[in-house]
Amino acid sequence: MLSALPTAKVYVTLKKGVLDPQGLTVQNALEALGYDVQEVRMGKYLELTLADRPREELEADVAEMCEKLLSNPVIEDFRFNIEP
Amino acid sequence: MLSALPTAKVYVTLKKGVLDPQGLTVQNALEALGYDVQEVRMGKYLELTLADRPREELEADVAEMCEKLLSNPVIEDFRFNIEP
Repeated sequence: MLSALPTAKVYVTLKKGVLDPQGLTVQNALEALGYDVQEVRMGKYLELTLADRPREELEADVAEMCEKLLSNPVIEDFRFNIEP
Repeated sequence: MLSALPTAKVYVTLKKGVLDPQGLTVQNALEALGYDVQEVRMGKYLELTLADRPREELEADVAEMCEKLLSNPVIEDFRFNIEP
């Protein structure tokens, strides 16, 4: 029954200019495998299954969750969309 | 100039049924903050800046990168799209 509930897809990415050692490591590994990759930036992706409530409340809640817990606003940006 | 190059957005998620202790931890933390969250699944999100080459080659390459390095095909699924 979980699939009938609204789902928030949250993307957390490092802000421009913030060093990304993990992305650099992945880039080096891909280049070692022979791929031509100019840059790799690592981020997080979360799928939250939410309770069935009005869309506006869900959007306000998810934005708050991102600010409080899911991202570090000093170095990270977030965006999300809620389906369906 | 990197922004003119094609970018692959890659999403790596745990397959259904695979335990996600990190997601569970996030869910517990969100519930402790008072949010009603039914399930949290953690995944990875990568942005790859690629060399400017024909679209079909890029798609084949990124699929290969995902299979070889970016995901663990035993427990993870991946999807990606290439822009522009």
